[in-house]
Amino acid sequence: MDGLGIDFVSELVGTALLVLLGTGVVANVALTKNKGFNGGFLMVNIGWGLAVFAGVIVSYASGAHLNPAVTLGLWASGAKEFGQGVAVDFLSIITYIGAQLLGAIIGAVFTWLAYKQHFDEEPEPANKLGVFSTGPAIRSYGWNVITEIIGTFVLVFVVIGFGRQPAGGGLAALGALPVALLVIGIGASLGGPTGYAINPARDLGPRIAHALLPIKGKGGSDWSYSWVPVVGPIIGGVIAGLVSSPLLPLLPGFPK
Amino acid sequence: MDGLGIDFVSELVGTALLVLLGTGVVANVALTKNKGFNGGFLMVNIGWGLAVFAGVIVSYASGAHLNPAVTLGLWASGAKEFGQGVAVDFLSIITYIGAQLLGAIIGAVFTWLAYKQHFDEEPEPANKLGVFSTGPAIRSYGWNVITEIIGTFVLVFVVIGFGRQPAGGGLAALGALPVALLVIGIGASLGGPTGYAINPARDLGPRIAHALLPIKGKGGSDWSYSWVPVVGPIIGGVIAGLVSSPLLPLLPGFPK
Amino acid sequence: MDGLGIDFVSELVGTALLVLLGTGVVANVALTKNKGFNGGFLMVNIGWGLAVFAGVIVSYASGAHLNPAVTLGLWASGAKEFGQGVAVDFLSIITYIGAQLLGAIIGAVFTWLAYKQHFDEEPEPANKLGVFSTGPAIRSYGWNVITEIIGTFVLVFVVIGFGRQPAGGGLAALGALPVALLVIGIGASLGGPTGYAINPARDLGPRIAHALLPIKGKGGSDWSYSWVPVVGPIIGGVIAGLVSSPLLPLLPGFPK
Amino acid sequence: MDGLGIDFVSELVGTALLVLLGTGVVANVALTKNKGFNGGFLMVNIGWGLAVFAGVIVSYASGAHLNPAVTLGLWASGAKEFGQGVAVDFLSIITYIGAQLLGAIIGAVFTWLAYKQHFDEEPEPANKLGVFSTGPAIRSYGWNVITEIIGTFVLVFVVIGFGRQPAGGGLAALGALPVALLVIGIGASLGGPTGYAINPARDLGPRIAHALLPIKGKGGSDWSYSWVPVVGPIIGGVIAGLVSSPLLPLLPGFPK
Repeated sequence: MDGLGIDFVSELVGTALLVLLGTGVVANVALTKNKGFNGGFLMVNIGWGLAVFAGVIVSYASGAHLNPAVTLGLWASGAKEFGQGVAVDFLSIITYIGAQLLGAIIGAVFTWLAYKQHFDEEPEPANKLGVFSTGPAIRSYGWNVITEIIGTFVLVFVVIGFGRQPAGGGLAALGALPVALLVIGIGASLGGPTGYAINPARDLGPRIAHALLPIKGKGGSDWSYSWVPVVGPIIGGVIAGLVSSPLLPLLPGFPK
Repeated sequence: MDGLGIDFVSELVGTALLVLLGTGVVANVALTKNKGFNGGFLMVNIGWGLAVFAGVIVSYASGAHLNPAVTLGLWASGAKEFGQGVAVDFLSIITYIGAQLLGAIIGAVFTWLAYKQHFDEEPEPANKLGVFSTGPAIRSYGWNVITEIIGTFVLVFVVIGFGRQPAGGGLAALGALPVALLVIGIGASLGGPTGYAINPARDLGPRIAHALLPIKGKGGSDWSYSWVPVVGPIIGGVIAGLVSSPLLPLLPGFPK
Repeated sequence: MDGLGIDFVSELVGTALLVLLGTGVVANVALTKNKGFNGGFLMVNIGWGLAVFAGVIVSYASGAHLNPAVTLGLWASGAKEFGQGVAVDFLSIITYIGAQLLGAIIGAVFTWLAYKQHFDEEPEPANKLGVFSTGPAIRSYGWNVITEIIGTFVLVFVVIGFGRQPAGGGLAALGALPVALLVIGIGASLGGPTGYAINPARDLGPRIAHALLPIKGKGGSDWSYSWVPVVGPIIGGVIAGLVSSPLLPLLPGFPK
Repeated sequence: MDGLGIDFVSELVGTALLVLLGTGVVANVALTKNKGFNGGFLMVNIGWGLAVFAGVIVSYASGAHLNPAVTLGLWASGAKEFGQGVAVDFLSIITYIGAQLLGAIIGAVFTWLAYKQHFDEEPEPANKLGVFSTGPAIRSYGWNVITEIIGTFVLVFVVIGFGRQPAGGGLAALGALPVALLVIGIGASLGGPTGYAINPARDLGPRIAHALLPIKGKGGSDWSYSWVPVVGPIIGGVIAGLVSSPLLPLLPGFPK
């Protein structure tokens, strides 16, 4: 298999694992009769953070983007290569995003299987959709987009910062842990208004799964909101890439 | 002592510590009058994760499986050696699993001793059994097995992934911490329906202890469910090993 | 850009990120209709700790003070250089503190934008101010100052201790994580009476933002208390610097 | 200052910090009007764990025992030297324990100062004592001692295990973090019945402070229970040392 094929498999597997564990913790907290029912927002934050942790571990080969906003942010920052020495161009960007979206759909299917009975017994359709995709606490597309932009900016800006830490035993070597901590922090700090999609694949993929799966008593998939957690994160990620491009190299403490 | 004897002691001590701390956190949260009573599902997740952390520390010599699903998953992945240069064969697999099961029984006995008074004063037999072994939120053997398969697949697949991280200051060097974080994540994300046994020894060993110990006012040991947290994790672990075998080496980012 | 200019940008960006995520978690927990509403004090502690984590990552170049009490504590400890080989003198101290204060104002503005609707719908003015700045549980300027002194002493004393850990794969190499853990611990342990400003910029900057921003239905900015979280942390940080100066070098386990 | 004098200062400072942050989190959760009031048992566990983290950082020079059960457990394990090359003998053991006890008293005094107003306004004397020292959920000296023995055995056994991890970027290099995680885990898992003293100095020192300080409306210091969290941890620590002595060297995976 060539480099781009490896990257495709790696992003697909990693994003599937990310979405399985991430939507899983929402299922546990939101669906009736679960042992973690009403476990609290911090538990959801920690669950999503450790979902990222597991996903990053298994997609080391492709650089573990797992998120179109990261892929596009790296492109905007002027990165020349993704994983496996693959050049950053239209084909590789599409390949990464396609793998992420497909992986997210697959991950959501397994969450449905793992929580099958609890989906069946849950009376409220909105709780079922909430396992798959985010929705706003107060619906206002403009402000919802802004919240997603800010959250994703923080994610991509700091992720780019990780790559510039001094090498040799430092944070970069820890790999998946710093990203996991960052996602826990963003969820706790900026997740209140929109539920922090901060990742178009994480939101759109499961929404597609919700629409396709034969979930008992499900309602609509709220397509009217579906563009917010796609557009907001992309804008935030690209801004982070553009800002980091002149800013971080300026700081000589960050060896490139 | 020869290599396999060392592995036996190491797995026994590590699994005993794992089960002591793991069943201990359930006792704290579930049994009446405890200081951690009703401490929440996240506290249980964290307690089990750190139980794995402590167990892995003291069973370094044998590779710290502590779980028949890990042992069998590594066998299925084509691993040639366990700890101490011991060949992977029928004898070593049986030795590992026997040590894990015996250690789990011993660990559960010490949890009973540490919480003796709280077992005595707890009125509800189901809460007592719940300290020792898992049970489903909604009983349905088929779906319960599927949930355990998915949870254990994630555990074993990512654990095998840890071993393929780049060496030298990386995650592999952190040893026990990544596995602990992974188990916290699996518990939060996939623990809702069945309480995440994801380890046959962790469930069957304490169940045997529950059946044998003179626990005041105990009820039955729910043997009709007992095969689920044995069969599900074994299937999940073996699938993870089989999948990882062609998949992970394919990804050249994982030096092996 | 010269060294001091780089330090200025670095401290400004890092403190902005710190305050965005730190005040963000308070907004999530305190403002009506948020998904993290009433998420608990531990969630606030963890949110602030990970805010420090993110801020330290991106301000590596300047040594990641992000706090006038740290800057002044290092000065009091006899440090000769800040980041980028800049000499510790009046100009560099003022530059650091100015950047921290300005960054804190900017961070608070973005929190307001991310939570705009929730500020608009929140009926209680005190909850709005509480997102920006700390206030005492029991108002008593003298004891409130003492609590802030003790909390900041712990922060700066241990931060100086980090720098003296043995090099090579040790805690120092982990960079941002130990400081994050320390701040979570200080918040949990010493945050009860005053909400642990332990950082003059973190408190005064957002208070200025609160005074200037057109926040709907806001009340006063409680300027009568505003000196406490400035004076207390400065005293605590300087004492920590002075104490550490003779104490830590005395201990030969700490290689300088 | 000679080696033993350095060790004395180091243990005193470290234990003071440990007890300040540890009793502080209990004050925050247990005393009226605090911002962390009723924050939950997990928050207490995390607070104590990070108290250990901070204490270990600043007492690196002496090996960071901070606990007579650790000092005596190391002696029982056959250790030849403490920090600074000081020989393990009666004088050095007494010096370590004396420093730990004195440090614990000092730490508790500062907790009282930091929470002075909340002690004054707290109506219930038992809550005030509970900040300083542990007490049993169900009083039964025999079983309470057993619980403390088991908890301290786990602490000292695993701490000795840390020292045997392979060097070079491994867990040992992380220093304070593994011990902090272990203490969080022991608290969650074995802290239900007695509140996990697992450290004679941590319990007796603050109890002495409680008896001596002019705390408004305080009740008795419960001296009838005071021997339990001294004797139990000493027995548990010594057993762990004795067990680890033949067991761990047997396992060649632990290079010593």
